[in-house]
Amino acid sequence: VYQSAQHVALIGLKEVTLTAAEQTGVDSMTTDEPSYVLSSRLFQPENTIIQLPHSTIGGEQFTMMAGPCSVESAEHILAMAKVAKEGGATLLRGGAYKPRTSPYSFQGMGEAGLKALRQAADATGMDVITEVMDETHVALIAQYTDVFQIGARNMQNFSLLKAVGQTNIPVALKRGLAATVDDLLNAAEYIAANGNHQIMLLERGIRTFDNQYTRNTFDLNAVPVLQKLSHYPVVVDPSHATGEWDLVTPMARAGVATGASGMMVEIHDHPEAAFSDGPQALKPATYLEMCRQIWAIDQLMRSW
Amino acid sequence: VYQSAQHVALIGLKEVTLTAAEQTGVDSMTTDEPSYVLSSRLFQPENTIIQLPHSTIGGEQFTMMAGPCSVESAEHILAMAKVAKEGGATLLRGGAYKPRTSPYSFQGMGEAGLKALRQAADATGMDVITEVMDETHVALIAQYTDVFQIGARNMQNFSLLKAVGQTNIPVALKRGLAATVDDLLNAAEYIAANGNHQIMLLERGIRTFDNQYTRNTFDLNAVPVLQKLSHYPVVVDPSHATGEWDLVTPMARAGVATGASGMMVEIHDHPEAAFSDGPQALKPATYLEMCRQIWAIDQLMRSW
Amino acid sequence: VYQSAQHVALIGLKEVTLTAAEQTGVDSMTTDEPSYVLSSRLFQPENTIIQLPHSTIGGEQFTMMAGPCSVESAEHILAMAKVAKEGGATLLRGGAYKPRTSPYSFQGMGEAGLKALRQAADATGMDVITEVMDETHVALIAQYTDVFQIGARNMQNFSLLKAVGQTNIPVALKRGLAATVDDLLNAAEYIAANGNHQIMLLERGIRTFDNQYTRNTFDLNAVPVLQKLSHYPVVVDPSHATGEWDLVTPMARAGVATGASGMMVEIHDHPEAAFSDGPQALKPATYLEMCRQIWAIDQLMRSW
Amino acid sequence: VYQSAQHVALIGLKEVTLTAAEQTGVDSMTTDEPSYVLSSRLFQPENTIIQLPHSTIGGEQFTMMAGPCSVESAEHILAMAKVAKEGGATLLRGGAYKPRTSPYSFQGMGEAGLKALRQAADATGMDVITEVMDETHVALIAQYTDVFQIGARNMQNFSLLKAVGQTNIPVALKRGLAATVDDLLNAAEYIAANGNHQIMLLERGIRTFDNQYTRNTFDLNAVPVLQKLSHYPVVVDPSHATGEWDLVTPMARAGVATGASGMMVEIHDHPEAAFSDGPQALKPATYLEMCRQIWAIDQLMRSW
Repeated sequence: VYQSAQHVALIGLKEVTLTAAEQTGVDSMTTDEPSYVLSSRLFQPENTIIQLPHSTIGGEQFTMMAGPCSVESAEHILAMAKVAKEGGATLLRGGAYKPRTSPYSFQGMGEAGLKALRQAADATGMDVITEVMDETHVALIAQYTDVFQIGARNMQNFSLLKAVGQTNIPVALKRGLAATVDDLLNAAEYIAANGNHQIMLLERGIRTFDNQYTRNTFDLNAVPVLQKLSHYPVVVDPSHATGEWDLVTPMARAGVATGASGMMVEIHDHPEAAFSDGPQALKPATYLEMCRQIWAIDQLMRSW
Repeated sequence: VYQSAQHVALIGLKEVTLTAAEQTGVDSMTTDEPSYVLSSRLFQPENTIIQLPHSTIGGEQFTMMAGPCSVESAEHILAMAKVAKEGGATLLRGGAYKPRTSPYSFQGMGEAGLKALRQAADATGMDVITEVMDETHVALIAQYTDVFQIGARNMQNFSLLKAVGQTNIPVALKRGLAATVDDLLNAAEYIAANGNHQIMLLERGIRTFDNQYTRNTFDLNAVPVLQKLSHYPVVVDPSHATGEWDLVTPMARAGVATGASGMMVEIHDHPEAAFSDGPQALKPATYLEMCRQIWAIDQLMRSW
Repeated sequence: VYQSAQHVALIGLKEVTLTAAEQTGVDSMTTDEPSYVLSSRLFQPENTIIQLPHSTIGGEQFTMMAGPCSVESAEHILAMAKVAKEGGATLLRGGAYKPRTSPYSFQGMGEAGLKALRQAADATGMDVITEVMDETHVALIAQYTDVFQIGARNMQNFSLLKAVGQTNIPVALKRGLAATVDDLLNAAEYIAANGNHQIMLLERGIRTFDNQYTRNTFDLNAVPVLQKLSHYPVVVDPSHATGEWDLVTPMARAGVATGASGMMVEIHDHPEAAFSDGPQALKPATYLEMCRQIWAIDQLMRSW
Repeated sequence: VYQSAQHVALIGLKEVTLTAAEQTGVDSMTTDEPSYVLSSRLFQPENTIIQLPHSTIGGEQFTMMAGPCSVESAEHILAMAKVAKEGGATLLRGGAYKPRTSPYSFQGMGEAGLKALRQAADATGMDVITEVMDETHVALIAQYTDVFQIGARNMQNFSLLKAVGQTNIPVALKRGLAATVDDLLNAAEYIAANGNHQIMLLERGIRTFDNQYTRNTFDLNAVPVLQKLSHYPVVVDPSHATGEWDLVTPMARAGVATGASGMMVEIHDHPEAAFSDGPQALKPATYLEMCRQIWAIDQLMRSW
């Protein structure tokens, strides 16, 4: 399944018996591990860099992605895009199809939301990242987005992973609430094995016993672990990882300090009236102050 | 969304203001909780009973579901069906579409597997339960199965839940690895809110720190908790909940002793050669001995 | 550290080099694993059986231990002892020194509680099991108890483990909330390595994300796992493992069905007025009905 | 139990009935919550600052604590103290009494280790922090240390908490592997309720399902959460929280970026020969480079 100047990966052989002639060209063999051959540094030591019209993810520069949890109206998403841009974000986030725990919660604006999101991004010179929940939506959403986001609940929706793997649009794969690092890399492998190698990995908190004051446990250890094992850029999401707006700024600082390639953050001008996830949204002034701190830490770290 | 002789459930009202005339007919109001109105005992106190041609789930009788993890061939599934039946199973399980952590693992036989499964069940006088992973497969699988199984990884694949919710085929919903009891009931609500009320809930182990000697932690507490909150039958899966064949029998005994409505178990005549999940499969003789014990405990408990 | 007819266990050798003469007598060597040599079945295949004046733990018979969470008065503990005995319990439990999360909660009656507990047990022909929290209390409590209980929070209080290991009084070691099976067996090894081999292991629930409707997650998988790895009797505690009285009976049934050697349960005639842990205490009538079910399942299982 | 200009905290009153005269002086009453009255910001809004001869914890300055896991010899601890000091540490850590999972592992040098630790700190102008495992050691260790460390396994060893609470030596309380934030604050309350208010809280990783590539999950969310709820300084321990030396530097950066008051880190010149926890120890050069980064981030953050 994989071939480079130095390595060949073969899948599905129960035993490998090399002829004398073949052995001449082989220095060493690794069997069985890791199962995520395309995602592993063993087979691609150099970093994957994702290049979008207005953004680079995985390169020298830290990348900011911001926007409201849900697209709520054309006016609102445009206003939020301007705020996001002012803070230095180059990707605009916003959900048009929302995976909600309860069927009675707001489920998103659908295609009208996609249009509004695209227009807001174009008007401000940003790229779009938005969630795809369903393989039947892939073609539609592809018309509007620069990056597909796969949500935590769908991290092992293998049909969806295969579907986005057959496009040439970059994919941001969110770690599931109970997904190990290996589970996440195997899920990424479903995308890569279908031909799409433009993948970024998002740490957004895992579920543990510690859930009284935060929605999730932010597993920042996973950032350097993933960077060691895989060449894909790693992005952090302090909004979902905490679930509380007043914890977002310190945890965003922690995220950039780990050496992540970027972050995604939720903003809203009236969090108390947000259609979803209001408690974790930053108001514009708080967001801008957070960005100031993030860019300063990023600049310091890149000066070393 | 719900109306019975005693109760009316309304969704989406921010505030409820009753006129004096309306108040006359109202004894009490409950707001906001639980969000899973259709699944809750608050709105349906009596048990849901699912009636299939050869099986009843949720009634007086304990129900056994058995079969191999994957359908491997027509001959093999028929042989396993005979073993399952001999132990007292009335549903035959077997996967034709398999959700696998790695894209390079066996992904199932597809429609040929469905046919073989249906034939084996018909030949032995059993009902079929098989997994649907993908909303685009719903119509196809509906032609072959008596019960849709939704796997743990897809418990919050809301598109899939809506799709099976629009059929009239019973659904067995497996609890996700990090799903709380409320998450599971809200996922069931997606099915019910789309019109399908024939739902059973499967406890199959959750993911915890305790994973050295077992694949998962079998959360049997969830059985009486779910029975208290919801009217849907609760079924246990000691095969996935342990991941080790020699732990299946004691944990199956524990499962029936909690008062669950049924169990699902994996069997295989040559576990070491199974296409998937061999380590947790019971050999026929072990399965039959386990069944003997299960039916004895069930009989004892029903005698009280 | 261990020698039997077939096995010798040596600790602390970095490398083992046997002379030719020594090799003659050696069939095989196992290095490094398991670290809990005295607790392992590898070195003692046969079950440990603990014999007390009125009880046997680990033998053919299931053992019931019951009583209130705290000793509250001489009258109350005697009344509870009579109820416990009536249900078939042969050990009376009750705390005189209580480990409480908050320093402002009731901390136990101390020595007066021990005396009352001993008198109640003697008056009803039962054995005493009570918690020791502190190595400085070991000598005092030894005068009153038949079994030392080590609580979950002290499972790795190594000074305490050493102290009870130097007595000849049996020890009931409760699994910690985040203790793996190996952690528990290594903690038991601290007791055994100090000379006390009369140990029983208590599964009483672990801490997981699933804590809305139950205080802990009852890890019943651990019962057969511990029985496979170790020769010590395994006892279950459905009171702490659920934290809710109405879940205790089904989970007690599950516990005996796994094949555990015994169970410990909390009872109280007025749970709402209990000094501690009232919500999980069974009222006498509920306890007696639970016992009836437990003994029936036990009898059935022993008939096989 | 607590009285300040604005607040009075009363414990143990079932109901509070104020006379008319008393009501005159009362603005508001809070009942039951939080149970950790002395530790809560509700009763002491201002930060606790711990002043030692060579260090301040909780003030304006970030505090570095470094040293080997175990004191191994007088020469070794002195060499490590010099390295620690060179990186900017003002506290020297080192264990003389070691809580080890297995009874057969190295248990520490005991009092000889304490003497060597004290001499090394005095020779380099540093303060000492060392673990106390046992209330019977409190008086002895008090002769040698500036700060008592309570380990994660002893976080709810209430006898030990009371014993150090009766001294006037500052206490560093490590969070247990399954301790919630409330559990940690209630444990701190045991110390405070016994009269010792010089407490710092250490986040050192919790136990979750994610344990393949790291020993624990570093719960950095807990830093701002604890700072919001309590006035005690919060310190992070990236060595135990990761268990892998090559993850320590990025996670140390994350720790300082959250706004913690200090960090504790393990160093060793020959990790492969360390008596304990070698895999997580930083070699001197790596430690010094990490310190350079930590101080730079600290300086940046204090410039805002």
